[in-house]
Amino acid sequence: MPIGVFDSGIGGLTVAREIMRQMPNEKIVYFGDTARVPYGSKSRETVARYSRQIVRFLLERKVKAIAIACNTASAYALPEIERECPVPVIGVIRPGARTACECTKNGRIGVIATRATVSSGSYTEFIHQIMPGAQVFAQACPLLVPLVEEGLWEDPVTDEITRRYLASLLHHGIDTLIMGCTHYPLIRKTIGRAAGETISLINPAYETAMELRSMLADLNLLSDHRPALGQGVPQYRFYVSDMAEQFQQFANSIIKYGILASEKIDIHTYSSAPLSKEEKG
Amino acid sequence: MPIGVFDSGIGGLTVAREIMRQMPNEKIVYFGDTARVPYGSKSRETVARYSRQIVRFLLERKVKAIAIACNTASAYALPEIERECPVPVIGVIRPGARTACECTKNGRIGVIATRATVSSGSYTEFIHQIMPGAQVFAQACPLLVPLVEEGLWEDPVTDEITRRYLASLLHHGIDTLIMGCTHYPLIRKTIGRAAGETISLINPAYETAMELRSMLADLNLLSDHRPALGQGVPQYRFYVSDMAEQFQQFANSIIKYGILASEKIDIHTYSSAPLSKEEKG
Repeated sequence: MPIGVFDSGIGGLTVAREIMRQMPNEKIVYFGDTARVPYGSKSRETVARYSRQIVRFLLERKVKAIAIACNTASAYALPEIERECPVPVIGVIRPGARTACECTKNGRIGVIATRATVSSGSYTEFIHQIMPGAQVFAQACPLLVPLVEEGLWEDPVTDEITRRYLASLLHHGIDTLIMGCTHYPLIRKTIGRAAGETISLINPAYETAMELRSMLADLNLLSDHRPALGQGVPQYRFYVSDMAEQFQQFANSIIKYGILASEKIDIHTYSSAPLSKEEKG
Repeated sequence: MPIGVFDSGIGGLTVAREIMRQMPNEKIVYFGDTARVPYGSKSRETVARYSRQIVRFLLERKVKAIAIACNTASAYALPEIERECPVPVIGVIRPGARTACECTKNGRIGVIATRATVSSGSYTEFIHQIMPGAQVFAQACPLLVPLVEEGLWEDPVTDEITRRYLASLLHHGIDTLIMGCTHYPLIRKTIGRAAGETISLINPAYETAMELRSMLADLNLLSDHRPALGQGVPQYRFYVSDMAEQFQQFANSIIKYGILASEKIDIHTYSSAPLSKEEKG
């Protein structure tokens, strides 16, 4: 049975990529909500509704666990999905928060993320659960996703915008910085330059794959051999709600496993109501 | 009866503003699809489906005419909506194309727009209907909307990005430039600086309001006196599909009429099927 991974669009591919690297025996079903991207500027209610529709789709695909590879959806929908879902669920925020707490020496942690993730206060909340005395400084960076999607990964404009966003965090003396949006690891070098050498950069995608691996191992759900793949049965399946071709192009620039096809799904036909008992199985 | 105006989000407010200026006696019902913004990176099919849902909502509000104040929706959905809709409909592309043809001296017209509007080829098509010999050069500018929405209207970064986008158009010797996205008039000065003094800038929002006015006059649908407004009956009503508060803030920075409230609508509950005969009747 595959692992389900979902995101508002393409950013979650950085999480899928880490799962592929760390668990090469696993199958993956990825869903990118490209018709309704971005989630980062939407309300909690809307993001929760969309997330439930996607979880229904993934359950229909018989996934054994779900990784919410979107910081905004993790911030806004994880508690409900965790409560309602019949398979284990992991978000990207808790693993990122945990690692930041392990890394920081001065207890001053910075978070860069979308507007919605920052508004949710989720990183601060999780960090305080682990390290009540930590000081958390969060900065919304709405331009970074469009800059990444425009391909300006190494560009003076992206450097300039990143420097502006980080200025106040650096002023607060942070020693650890969480890249709290799945797009950001793609401009890790730019963020590293703007942050300076002394600051630890945390990539929640990496930490989430690690934590998912140990969760699956605990539940005895890890696959211990490469999946037997017949003709036309790919190890990795990609679904989107719109613009399948453009998705594929971008995906192939991030993931080096050769994404042969992605399929368009009418996600709006799935119910957004809380999962009922029958669905829970 | 009010005029219905809709857009994928806030950009269409520049069209609503022109209608307010040019037709101060008219009531307006505005819908911004802030839950599903942006349309500029979505497919024709998705944009048409969303547009039909919004038209249904506006018809329920008893509008006497509809202005599609979104270039992408005008490019992708106008023909169907025009055919199916029981009230007159206007898009922003035809008026912009017409004015560009009137303005150009050398027949070389530039268009800057979202990726979807450029892909649709709509501006080129309309311009060629009017001026078959014109040469049209279109450039997708995906970063301009996020830069406008981030408030960087006067900023060296926006100058730099705009200069890059315009470089190839200027190289082609255009003398007229259509601002083919409703956000762009908000950075008209930046675009003007990058284009240079000799190039005519066309604002389709202005031209659309002009054409709507003459269309309503021809149909004897123009209101000839200020609407009688009782307590709680505003001349302008604003509806959104998400983030009503944020919309209002932005709207008030664009429109100087004091937008007192905007209401959230569950647009996904409206059917996206073609309008049936009963609805037309």
